[in-house]
Amino acid sequence: MDLKGRDLITTQDWSGEELLAALDLAVKMKKDRYGFADVLKHRTFFMFFYNPSVRTRQSFECAATEIGGHAQFLEPKSMRLKTATTAGETIEDAGKVMSRYACGIGIRMLEDKCSRYGEGEELLREYARWAEVPIVSMAHDKFHPCQGLADVMGWTEWLSPKGTFDPGVLKGKKLLMTWGHGALARSWSSVQEAMLIGSRLGMDITVAAPEGYDLDPEVVEWTNQNCKSTGAAFDTTHDVTSGYKGAHVVYSRNWMSPAAYRDGKFHKEEEIEKAMKLSDWICDAEKMALTESAIYTHPMPIDRGHEVTDEVASGPRSCIYDVAENRLHAQKAIMALTMGAK
Amino acid sequence: MDLKGRDLITTQDWSGEELLAALDLAVKMKKDRYGFADVLKHRTFFMFFYNPSVRTRQSFECAATEIGGHAQFLEPKSMRLKTATTAGETIEDAGKVMSRYACGIGIRMLEDKCSRYGEGEELLREYARWAEVPIVSMAHDKFHPCQGLADVMGWTEWLSPKGTFDPGVLKGKKLLMTWGHGALARSWSSVQEAMLIGSRLGMDITVAAPEGYDLDPEVVEWTNQNCKSTGAAFDTTHDVTSGYKGAHVVYSRNWMSPAAYRDGKFHKEEEIEKAMKLSDWICDAEKMALTESAIYTHPMPIDRGHEVTDEVASGPRSCIYDVAENRLHAQKAIMALTMGAK
Amino acid sequence: MDLKGRDLITTQDWSGEELLAALDLAVKMKKDRYGFADVLKHRTFFMFFYNPSVRTRQSFECAATEIGGHAQFLEPKSMRLKTATTAGETIEDAGKVMSRYACGIGIRMLEDKCSRYGEGEELLREYARWAEVPIVSMAHDKFHPCQGLADVMGWTEWLSPKGTFDPGVLKGKKLLMTWGHGALARSWSSVQEAMLIGSRLGMDITVAAPEGYDLDPEVVEWTNQNCKSTGAAFDTTHDVTSGYKGAHVVYSRNWMSPAAYRDGKFHKEEEIEKAMKLSDWICDAEKMALTESAIYTHPMPIDRGHEVTDEVASGPRSCIYDVAENRLHAQKAIMALTMGAK
Repeated sequence: MDLKGRDLITTQDWSGEELLAALDLAVKMKKDRYGFADVLKHRTFFMFFYNPSVRTRQSFECAATEIGGHAQFLEPKSMRLKTATTAGETIEDAGKVMSRYACGIGIRMLEDKCSRYGEGEELLREYARWAEVPIVSMAHDKFHPCQGLADVMGWTEWLSPKGTFDPGVLKGKKLLMTWGHGALARSWSSVQEAMLIGSRLGMDITVAAPEGYDLDPEVVEWTNQNCKSTGAAFDTTHDVTSGYKGAHVVYSRNWMSPAAYRDGKFHKEEEIEKAMKLSDWICDAEKMALTESAIYTHPMPIDRGHEVTDEVASGPRSCIYDVAENRLHAQKAIMALTMGAK
Repeated sequence: MDLKGRDLITTQDWSGEELLAALDLAVKMKKDRYGFADVLKHRTFFMFFYNPSVRTRQSFECAATEIGGHAQFLEPKSMRLKTATTAGETIEDAGKVMSRYACGIGIRMLEDKCSRYGEGEELLREYARWAEVPIVSMAHDKFHPCQGLADVMGWTEWLSPKGTFDPGVLKGKKLLMTWGHGALARSWSSVQEAMLIGSRLGMDITVAAPEGYDLDPEVVEWTNQNCKSTGAAFDTTHDVTSGYKGAHVVYSRNWMSPAAYRDGKFHKEEEIEKAMKLSDWICDAEKMALTESAIYTHPMPIDRGHEVTDEVASGPRSCIYDVAENRLHAQKAIMALTMGAK
Repeated sequence: MDLKGRDLITTQDWSGEELLAALDLAVKMKKDRYGFADVLKHRTFFMFFYNPSVRTRQSFECAATEIGGHAQFLEPKSMRLKTATTAGETIEDAGKVMSRYACGIGIRMLEDKCSRYGEGEELLREYARWAEVPIVSMAHDKFHPCQGLADVMGWTEWLSPKGTFDPGVLKGKKLLMTWGHGALARSWSSVQEAMLIGSRLGMDITVAAPEGYDLDPEVVEWTNQNCKSTGAAFDTTHDVTSGYKGAHVVYSRNWMSPAAYRDGKFHKEEEIEKAMKLSDWICDAEKMALTESAIYTHPMPIDRGHEVTDEVASGPRSCIYDVAENRLHAQKAIMALTMGAK
C-alpha cells in the first residue's frame, strides 16, 4: 500500500485497509511521540484557513513540528484569487506554484465562508485537481476526515482491553449521533465524518435529531450503505431519548438545519435562536444511564450546558481530551503517509 | 532544584535560588548561542497574544527556535471562549487540550484588553489552574517576569568586573525607578517586575513619580518587604531630581496613573494628555550627572524625547540593547528549565 | 568573495561576479533540495510585511525552513514606530534590537503603503543603515531583487543546452519587457529589476508600453548604461507589436503609470480604469509568432486574459512555474551567502 501523494478530503475516499494503516501509524506515533522526527524534515505544509481556527491550527502546526517539518499558517484573504467578479490568480496557477514549495496543503472552509452547502467541498476538489501535492481537509462544509480518524482512534482506545489497540472492537458497537441544542450553529462536517468512518468500521449507527435537522441526504445514504456492507444496523429518529438505549458511544453535538443557507447567505443568528428553544436536546446523566455504559465523545470545543452537561463531559466515561489529543497523532500519520520523505 | 512544570507569572513566585539558576543558565546560553539546540527539540510553545507585540513575539519565537523547538503565534480573538455573556469553550477545556499539544503556554494581556487592573493576572492564574504545562507571562497588567530577568542580567553584566558575571554585584547598589512623561500610557508590568526582582537581589530602591502616579500598593509593599529582608533601603518621592543622587542604575519609563481604569474602560487618551503636561519628568544628562555614574536602562521600545533624551539613551552608559538581547537568552533559560526535554 | 553581512536591496548594488555566485548556489540548492540544511540551523529570519503577500511569504518561509532556519512572519502595523506625527520607537532602536535576535531581515513595502514613489526604498535604506544584519528586499516600490534572480535563473535554464546551466547563454539574447493591460495596477518593482539584471547579463532590452506608462527614468538610464557596458542594444517603443520581432524572452506585465501617485495617495481605481481601456496590450499567440520562438515569462500571479492569453501562459514555451519555483532556491542562496553560518 502506497499512500504517497494521496488527497484526504473525506475518509470515505480511502479504503478500509488504508484507514487502518493510518490508525496504526497514529497509535505508534502517540506511543513514541518524538521518534518520527525525520519524516517531514525541512519540509513545509501549507495551512490555508478560509475560516480561522485555533484548535485546528495548533494541532496541525504541532504535528508538522513533531515530525521535523514546518506548517505555515496562511490566510487566503490576502491572496488575490480570480473569481467570477474579481481579477486575480486562477486556482490552477496557485495550486501549481504551491506544489513547487510545499509537500502538502491543508484547507479549512466552513459554512459561514460559503454561499451554499457544497461550495467548500468544490473548492477542495478544485485545488486537488491542480495541485501536484496532497490536499488535506482541515474541516470543510461537508467533511472533517482528521477529526473522524481521531474519533475512532479514541473510541478504540477506550473500548479495547487495556494496553491493546484493535479497531475491530468497534464492530457491532452502537454509535448514537445525537443533536444537541446550543448557541453556535455548528457545521455538519465532524458529525458526517464520524457517521461515515464509524459505519466503515462496523458500528451500528443511530442518528437522533429534532424534525427539521436532517443532515446531507447523500451522506446519510452512504452511511446506510456502509452499514449494509458490514451487516450493521442504521436508524434515524426524532425522539430525544430512545437512541440512547444500547449505545456504546454517545456523540452529542449541535448542528445547523438545512435551512441555514438561503439566498446565498448563512443565517447564523436565526439558526441559534431556533436551536436554543429545543432545550430538551442535551446529553445528561439521566439519558446516559440508558446506555451500555457508553463513553461520551465530542470533537470540541464543547458548548457545555447546551450540548452536554458538565457532569457527563467531565465524567469518568468522557473521552473528549483523548480524542482531542488524537488529532495531533492522526494528523502526523496522515502527513507521514501522504507527504513523508521516502 | 527541579523547575520542570513550574509556571512563571512573576519572579516573586520563585525563590532567590531559582532566579539565580535561571540567570546562570541564561548567561551560559548567551555565550554558547546555538549550543542548546536539543532542549526543546520538536516541541511546541504556544504564544497567546491578547495584545499584539512585535518585540515580545520576536524574542520568544527566536528563543524557541534557538533551542530546537517552535513557538506558535496565536491570537485568542479567533478562539470562542465562554464568558459571562457568550457561548464558547471553558478555560478548563482549552487549558487541558492545549496541554496535550504544547510543552508550555505564554500569555500576553495588557491594560487595554482588561476592564480593570488585575484581570490579566486572574486570566493567567486561571490558565495555570487548568493547564498541565507551564504558563509563562509574556507581560500582563501586573507583571513581566522575563523582562525582569533580562533587566537584572543586563545590570549585572554592566556592573560586574569585565568578563565575569556575579548577580551579587547588585547588592547595595541603588536602583532609581523614575516616571517619565510620554505619549504611550504604559503598563505597570515592567516597572513593578523590576522593583521586585531588583529588591530580591539586594538593591536599594527609590521610586520617583509625580503625585497621582502611585503603582499597585500591594506590589510596593512586597518591594518594601523584599528590601527589609536583605537590609536594603526603600524610598518613594515626588521630587523629579533627588532620586538620582547616589543611583547606580536609572530606569526611567512612563506609566499610567491608577485613574486610567474607570467604568470598565482604559482611558488612554486622557492618560496621555495628562502625562504630556509633566515635561520636567525626563531623564537627561544633567540629572544623570547627579548619580554614581549610573547606567541607563529601559525595557524598550523607548519613547525618546519624552522618557529620556537621545543623549542618555544612546550614550556610553546605556545598557538598553544588551537588556533587549537578554530577553532572548532569559526566555530560552526559562523554557529550558520549566519545559525542556529531560 | 565574501557576501556575509551584505544587504540586497537591488541586484544593481551587487557586482556581476556576486550575482553569478548567487545563481550558481541557487542551482546547486535546487538540485540538492534538502542538502543544505545546516546553513541557517536554529537561526531566525524576520519577514516584515508592510504589504501582505501569500506567495512571497510562502517562498521565503519555505526557503528558511529548507536550510534549517525559521522565518517569522511579522506585520509592522503592530509595531509602534516613531513618525513625524506619532510617538513610538525609532528605526535606529528597532534595527539595533532586531539585529540581536535575527540573522537577517526581509522587508516588503509596495506602492499602496507609500505616499510617494521612493518611500519604500528609503525605508529599506534606513533599516540597512542601522541594522547590523543584512536587509533583503522582499519587493518594494522600486525593486524586487529576488524576483530578478529567479527570472534570469529560469531563462538560463530554458535557453541553456539541456542538462547544463550557463548564464552566459543570455548574452546577445533579446528581452522584450512589454506592458499588459489589467485590473491590478501593478508595481514597477519586478519589471525594473528584470531590466536591470537582464542588462547586466548582456541581454538586448526593448521596453514597450503605451504613452504615459514610462518607468522610473533613473532605472531606465541605469539599464541603458548596463547595455552600453556589455555592448547590447537598448530600445523603447510605444508600439504594441514591433518589440516582439526577434525577441527570445517575452515578459508581459501590467504596471501603473507615473500618475498613480498624487497628493500623497495611490490612485488605484483610476489606474485600473485607465489601463483596462488599452485592451490591445495583451501578449497573445499572434504576437509571439513574431519572435525567435521566445519563452514567455511573468513573475506571477498572472492576471490571465489581460496581461496574457491562457494559450500563451499555459503553452509549451511558458517558463512561469519554473521561475516561480526559482524564487525558493534563489532566496535560499541569498540567505546562505549573506546570513549563513560560517
